[in-house]
Amino acid sequence: MTVVESTLVADAASTARRQATTAAGSPRQDPQPAQMKALVYHGPGRKAWEDHARPVVVEATDAIVRVTKTTICGTDLHILKGDLPSCVPGRILGHEGVGVVDSVGAAVTAFKAGDRVLISCVSACGKCAYCRRGMFSHCETGGWILGNTIDGTQAEFVRIPHADTSLYPIPPGADEEALVMLSDILPTGFECGVLNGKVQPGNTVAIVGSGPIGLAALLTSQFYSPAEIIMIDLDDGRLEVARRFGATASINSTDGKAAEAVMKLTGGRGVDTAVEAVGIPATFELCEEIVAPGGVIANIGVHGVQVALHLERLWDRNISITTRLVDTVSTPMLLNIVKAKRIDPTRLITHRFKLSQILEAYETFGHAAETKALKVILEA
Amino acid sequence: MTVVESTLVADAASTARRQATTAAGSPRQDPQPAQMKALVYHGPGRKAWEDHARPVVVEATDAIVRVTKTTICGTDLHILKGDLPSCVPGRILGHEGVGVVDSVGAAVTAFKAGDRVLISCVSACGKCAYCRRGMFSHCETGGWILGNTIDGTQAEFVRIPHADTSLYPIPPGADEEALVMLSDILPTGFECGVLNGKVQPGNTVAIVGSGPIGLAALLTSQFYSPAEIIMIDLDDGRLEVARRFGATASINSTDGKAAEAVMKLTGGRGVDTAVEAVGIPATFELCEEIVAPGGVIANIGVHGVQVALHLERLWDRNISITTRLVDTVSTPMLLNIVKAKRIDPTRLITHRFKLSQILEAYETFGHAAETKALKVILEA
Amino acid sequence: MTVVESTLVADAASTARRQATTAAGSPRQDPQPAQMKALVYHGPGRKAWEDHARPVVVEATDAIVRVTKTTICGTDLHILKGDLPSCVPGRILGHEGVGVVDSVGAAVTAFKAGDRVLISCVSACGKCAYCRRGMFSHCETGGWILGNTIDGTQAEFVRIPHADTSLYPIPPGADEEALVMLSDILPTGFECGVLNGKVQPGNTVAIVGSGPIGLAALLTSQFYSPAEIIMIDLDDGRLEVARRFGATASINSTDGKAAEAVMKLTGGRGVDTAVEAVGIPATFELCEEIVAPGGVIANIGVHGVQVALHLERLWDRNISITTRLVDTVSTPMLLNIVKAKRIDPTRLITHRFKLSQILEAYETFGHAAETKALKVILEA
Amino acid sequence: MTVVESTLVADAASTARRQATTAAGSPRQDPQPAQMKALVYHGPGRKAWEDHARPVVVEATDAIVRVTKTTICGTDLHILKGDLPSCVPGRILGHEGVGVVDSVGAAVTAFKAGDRVLISCVSACGKCAYCRRGMFSHCETGGWILGNTIDGTQAEFVRIPHADTSLYPIPPGADEEALVMLSDILPTGFECGVLNGKVQPGNTVAIVGSGPIGLAALLTSQFYSPAEIIMIDLDDGRLEVARRFGATASINSTDGKAAEAVMKLTGGRGVDTAVEAVGIPATFELCEEIVAPGGVIANIGVHGVQVALHLERLWDRNISITTRLVDTVSTPMLLNIVKAKRIDPTRLITHRFKLSQILEAYETFGHAAETKALKVILEA
Repeated sequence: MTVVESTLVADAASTARRQATTAAGSPRQDPQPAQMKALVYHGPGRKAWEDHARPVVVEATDAIVRVTKTTICGTDLHILKGDLPSCVPGRILGHEGVGVVDSVGAAVTAFKAGDRVLISCVSACGKCAYCRRGMFSHCETGGWILGNTIDGTQAEFVRIPHADTSLYPIPPGADEEALVMLSDILPTGFECGVLNGKVQPGNTVAIVGSGPIGLAALLTSQFYSPAEIIMIDLDDGRLEVARRFGATASINSTDGKAAEAVMKLTGGRGVDTAVEAVGIPATFELCEEIVAPGGVIANIGVHGVQVALHLERLWDRNISITTRLVDTVSTPMLLNIVKAKRIDPTRLITHRFKLSQILEAYETFGHAAETKALKVILEA
Repeated sequence: MTVVESTLVADAASTARRQATTAAGSPRQDPQPAQMKALVYHGPGRKAWEDHARPVVVEATDAIVRVTKTTICGTDLHILKGDLPSCVPGRILGHEGVGVVDSVGAAVTAFKAGDRVLISCVSACGKCAYCRRGMFSHCETGGWILGNTIDGTQAEFVRIPHADTSLYPIPPGADEEALVMLSDILPTGFECGVLNGKVQPGNTVAIVGSGPIGLAALLTSQFYSPAEIIMIDLDDGRLEVARRFGATASINSTDGKAAEAVMKLTGGRGVDTAVEAVGIPATFELCEEIVAPGGVIANIGVHGVQVALHLERLWDRNISITTRLVDTVSTPMLLNIVKAKRIDPTRLITHRFKLSQILEAYETFGHAAETKALKVILEA
Repeated sequence: MTVVESTLVADAASTARRQATTAAGSPRQDPQPAQMKALVYHGPGRKAWEDHARPVVVEATDAIVRVTKTTICGTDLHILKGDLPSCVPGRILGHEGVGVVDSVGAAVTAFKAGDRVLISCVSACGKCAYCRRGMFSHCETGGWILGNTIDGTQAEFVRIPHADTSLYPIPPGADEEALVMLSDILPTGFECGVLNGKVQPGNTVAIVGSGPIGLAALLTSQFYSPAEIIMIDLDDGRLEVARRFGATASINSTDGKAAEAVMKLTGGRGVDTAVEAVGIPATFELCEEIVAPGGVIANIGVHGVQVALHLERLWDRNISITTRLVDTVSTPMLLNIVKAKRIDPTRLITHRFKLSQILEAYETFGHAAETKALKVILEA
Repeated sequence: MTVVESTLVADAASTARRQATTAAGSPRQDPQPAQMKALVYHGPGRKAWEDHARPVVVEATDAIVRVTKTTICGTDLHILKGDLPSCVPGRILGHEGVGVVDSVGAAVTAFKAGDRVLISCVSACGKCAYCRRGMFSHCETGGWILGNTIDGTQAEFVRIPHADTSLYPIPPGADEEALVMLSDILPTGFECGVLNGKVQPGNTVAIVGSGPIGLAALLTSQFYSPAEIIMIDLDDGRLEVARRFGATASINSTDGKAAEAVMKLTGGRGVDTAVEAVGIPATFELCEEIVAPGGVIANIGVHGVQVALHLERLWDRNISITTRLVDTVSTPMLLNIVKAKRIDPTRLITHRFKLSQILEAYETFGHAAETKALKVILEA
């Protein structure tokens, strides 16, 4: 994830104190702003669970949410490595979670204090040309900004811009742990992998990468009843999880012969949908090798360098390649389908911590090969 | 164009004499087969207009067509350079044209001797899994075989496999020169560029390459009333043609600043559809630079080498990239729309020759920069 | 047009004076509210151009627009006949127009006083489940409310709820008369007739009804280059206009033999798209007779009674029937395409009046058979 | 089902003896043609299991299939009541089944004697304009002709026109009883109900009619993971079956309050997809009452009389209504998905008989209310 064309919304933490104006709903006028605990990025390799000013309403369309459950994303690890220049030191990380509305700006009509809400990783104004096309990811004043260009959800409180179109009411009786998976990972797997990949009943799908995001694509691809779902990874443990989650075949690609294995499984035809869920040239090029004529390569991976596109072989193969930053337009549908118990997102949750144990949670999540961690839940 | 998975249909010219069996309709049993003139490929750089055995019905689904008008494609020049290993010396070139049915096999039901027909550059059995999906280009026993893996249309007669689904009746009173443009160039520009590119009313389109195929995309994109069509080429003469054909803006990319110019024309946003109509890395990468978030790069160009796909910049831009060998599924629609005079394909025709002057026609077409040739008509 | 599920927004005129609260931007606190002239409905058959309180901002998302140009819709005539119970006496009529923003509520971010704006006939919150699906017509707090359940645009000033998502900026240099056609009639013809009717290049279209809305469908269907557009009406004058506007054939249905005539024109096949633009059973049933297998009947007409659907004949014809209240989701596209001069909406304008002459304008528009009126422009 | 525009293919039984010409592959020249047993329609209320001439190849594209398993369709009962004038006395009934190829015409390339095949209820030439659009149901020389305008499958042998595009190879090891459900009932429920109804993940579906065809729609709608599937019928036994087959709710409509019940279940919103699987006005009008704004009514039922379409209420609801005779374009997909065990079609089979017991089987199937019969298998 990264930010595109988002210049309007500045850092709440640093500007809230002077900007909390009459335009906003119920500005706090404390000479000493209230404090909270938060996970703050301090530059490559450095983070701390420390005291921080509590966020306040800045724009009339903001809501302040008390975070009750959050989680850690692979993207947070990328930020901590220093890979995302858009995220500067001092930033509170995190773009996932559920919580309770603490206060709202004057223009918020869909939520009020006390409402239990799901926080979307993407903020959407609902008005700009991109939002009107359902491309919330490219909202002119939103997109992925939480825990990136403004403070995020790994804290006791978070400011949510464009609250009416960036929060979702939690239905009574819902499993809130399950819903944390709807902030980012399930819509990402579904929109970027399954919808873009045009998964259809009876089709053949390969998913390259059996980490949390590949598994989210695996779970949500089953909404469309493909005949075959082939999972490819280097780690036998993750492949075993994939088979439990519904993969009909799995390939350990350590030997460099994954393409051959896919061709064998598909009678030499290749797959209708190849989902790239890693983000490196080798896995993308594997997708180029295994996609059937007429098929789709749906990229989910976050790439840091260019890849070789073999048009000399693909120009006449009638294929499509898609890229996408999750728009979270599917969130209402996913809420419905979770409520109807057609999917159990908690299968992705392997570890649980108190929010105050977040540094330990980062250790666990950051060493997934040993800990077998997929998603960790942090409870406030 | 190249052949994919087409192994069944062998060279008619060399096998017809021994294969003309009882399965076929009315096999000719002449001890000395009838002769005709044809343009034969004799290896890189070598071709001749020479005597050749006339084709006969081999399969019951074949038709023999007397060619009345044909043309030369850029792909024919590629073959003559030796770029297409699938096309071996001894092959009659050409995959476009109109003519009159001379004889048909026993299983042909839609055509009879004397019918005037349009020859599709793609042969389709109409039965295989690909044909049933409308992917005639990947027909298991067809696809682009004419003038490639079997003898083609630059001759007095040609054998057309799968005649019922590879020929089209010419409506009475039709302009047959116009219809020669429907064998390949118009469906290619339309299907690979316009349909794949999802050109829509009010959208912004850029077409990189103002040669015959780019101009075909330009003409057919106007079926969908885009607001802006930006044409990009190195040749001012071709850009001037493009403006006459409906381009709303043109950019000479000689200075290497085409991307900047497109961004300026689109208010920094880029284009909804970028059509690649050249086939080299530089032009494809230009498309990567100018496509807007949510847009499509529709590749038409025949590429000989890989290109760099800048996923490090495009992974979160919600774009699609498409490739396609023309399927000619749009031919019935194009016949309708030509009949209704909503497009005049003869605007692409710059030169006319007798079929017997084909070597001269190749000279003219092969030196388009000087001759300003777009499409040449060869009349039998 | 009628109102669906719109219960929230009450009559501005009656509630504004007591509701103009601090939540709104710059409430007017005049003891005597400012006055203006407006066209007020006083029950079946009765209307007056009279003094009325000027509207003020009620919700933070409102804008007050000074109307510079407006027009009269056939629906206004329906209201005056007493056909729409949702529109009660005392209501200012009108749901079309352009103007200048006079003031905005605190939550309006896209517009400010002085901006020139196009008013959409449909108000959209941009937040509810229907708006998120692009079904603005069914917005839970909007939809078609202007000149229906709240005061409308046939006045010197109008209050526009959900201003950010219900107004459109007018580009510099635009022809404002042309844009009045974008409030309702062009998006209605386009969305309900052309988009729902799946008009495609090379297809055959019949439009039943050559009044303003049928002509709007005729103009916008040409965005997709159908091969044939057959116009059907009882009035030769209107059919002559239709031919000038691009119809390829016209049929006067006075003799009751329109279906036969269409079948003759289409070689017995029928039309791919039949657009119903009248709103009575006879015209809808004509569409049932002329739609080809695989075709679409796209209803635009406002129907007051049920129609007979001949499923005993249509159940196996693979057809679709669509209904739609315009959503105005196509407005940004239409603005683009008007700007690009691919359509000239002013062709629909036959008469011009001062806004103060509105009673005379109603006379002219209400007697279209004699006056040949299509759309009338009222200028403030 | 009924026949549309199919005039070419005459009755095989009566014409085969004189037409078996040299055009065909291996004509039988027996002075006394071989005999077989067949279920012959002898006019309203009359049928017999009797001796009949065995069919022979008439057209070069025919195959003769020895039927190994067949079944009875509700449409067969309609024919026996005399409801279908297209089906004349003397006709062998039946349009479903699997078998073994006995002989093929000269132009058949995809099958040979001995191949095990699935017989599609729709014959498709694969060449005409309708077939090229995937509308096999309207094939100019095919469509639903088996057991209707030509002799059908309730016999020891059947002639299949257009064999290459109307038969499907049975994969080794397949459950042939399951595949009998792919001749008609599953593609009908899927194409007419599920595909036309645009069933999507998370959506709400109501199916009116819990007979075999409604249950086929129920089973195949689950390919798309709707959140809710509400089944409506008059018979509690069938509703109980529906719940076992995956319905999330069921409504017995005997009390005339089904619409109210659906509104209650959907929070007053109605359903995204309403499938009509009965074929009478009352059930179609129930669909009109329960479809949500933006929803679809997908008609499967065979209607004998017109229905009332309440456009006075629906004109502004943004709905679609679709009709369709099954095209069987989904058969390859259904074969894949059965092979992958994502659906078990044998759940529809309640009774099994020998083919020679077909009169008893008709009794059982014709009294489904008592026998609880869904589909019966007849084994040769």
